[in-house]
Amino acid sequence: NLLESPEGLKLGGERRKITILTSDLRGFTATSERLQPEEVVKILNFYLECMADVITQYQGTIDEFMGDGILVLFGAPTQRKDDAERAVACAVAMQLAMEKVNTKMQEWGLLPLAMGIGINTGVVVVGNIGSEKRTKYGIVGNQVNLTYRIEGYTIGGQILISESTLKEVGSIAMVIGQKQVKPQGVKEPITIYQIGGISDPYNLVLPSKKEELKTLPQPIS
Amino acid sequence: NLLESPEGLKLGGERRKITILTSDLRGFTATSERLQPEEVVKILNFYLECMADVITQYQGTIDEFMGDGILVLFGAPTQRKDDAERAVACAVAMQLAMEKVNTKMQEWGLLPLAMGIGINTGVVVVGNIGSEKRTKYGIVGNQVNLTYRIEGYTIGGQILISESTLKEVGSIAMVIGQKQVKPQGVKEPITIYQIGGISDPYNLVLPSKKEELKTLPQPIS
Repeated sequence: NLLESPEGLKLGGERRKITILTSDLRGFTATSERLQPEEVVKILNFYLECMADVITQYQGTIDEFMGDGILVLFGAPTQRKDDAERAVACAVAMQLAMEKVNTKMQEWGLLPLAMGIGINTGVVVVGNIGSEKRTKYGIVGNQVNLTYRIEGYTIGGQILISESTLKEVGSIAMVIGQKQVKPQGVKEPITIYQIGGISDPYNLVLPSKKEELKTLPQPIS
Repeated sequence: NLLESPEGLKLGGERRKITILTSDLRGFTATSERLQPEEVVKILNFYLECMADVITQYQGTIDEFMGDGILVLFGAPTQRKDDAERAVACAVAMQLAMEKVNTKMQEWGLLPLAMGIGINTGVVVVGNIGSEKRTKYGIVGNQVNLTYRIEGYTIGGQILISESTLKEVGSIAMVIGQKQVKPQGVKEPITIYQIGGISDPYNLVLPSKKEELKTLPQPIS
């Protein structure tokens, strides 16, 4: 989206607080082994198109598609005050857009897909990274890896966010569960929060699913 | 490299046996937190440039740079009989090219970098994957994930390859160690092989390092 006009980006890289969103289709790689290759590509392209539309709407920067995975930046190249808010709102809208994806799956006679989303806010190095022939806007730092770890805790349909993102978003985030986890490479356990929606000015709510809450039995403190 | 002219690629995706190479700078993300952002980008760009040169020489297709990580395909878009051989030769040449990278690090007053490489051969779905505005040649399948897991077992300076790659390359691969591992998502333990070089027609040998062999104590059966 903004990859071609990196306004506000210092040449040579800078350290900056951004909100990182990663998503993937839970279990899709395994499923893809049983599908026709044309079906795999057809499904992915429909799904990625739907998600790209939503991400653009929330001014996220798509940094990467990796198979069914998506890496989205909020706050780079362009920083805005509501980066974390838009990231969470975007995640809820992405989950809501899965209805459209799954209507199409049904039309194609295929089983429904389920996406997991992890969100984290932190300081990373951003810059134009690559070789002479192949430079792209990239990010480096522990906070990137942590975002993938948080996403790894999701089951299909879930959005999990870190404490730092929750602090930025504040009370408009609708937290429907929390969990202590100890991701690889992190010294102390951290708390991650399951998001069920986001209120004013976004007013987006996920349909409640009992089975999702089962994995997060701790009450909100 | 070949991304712009995907000759031989069926529109809509196909299932194909390819050799996948993934590499990353072991521990670099953690190190990057202590460096100036300009230094992080300067280091990465020099390193990626050196590696891109080597990869091009061995006709590998760079599918992705992710921070310090590189995903390279041999056999897509264009399939050749010696895909697995070139992948292993490329890996050895990449490790040898780290000398140039580390000479530069020393010049810059920085600590040396160490790269790990994983290689695996298997059947994946390949195709043009993405949204309308952002399509790229991509791959999907369990074998991609397995390659990343194999790379995850490396320490700096090592090349680890799967049994399927070793079978393709045959006796020109110089195996200097082997190890049984049970990667996440794989039912039975698998054997991975540490590569010390590749003979005729490539004739590339890594300088031997005692500390590397310590981690692979089992003799070659």
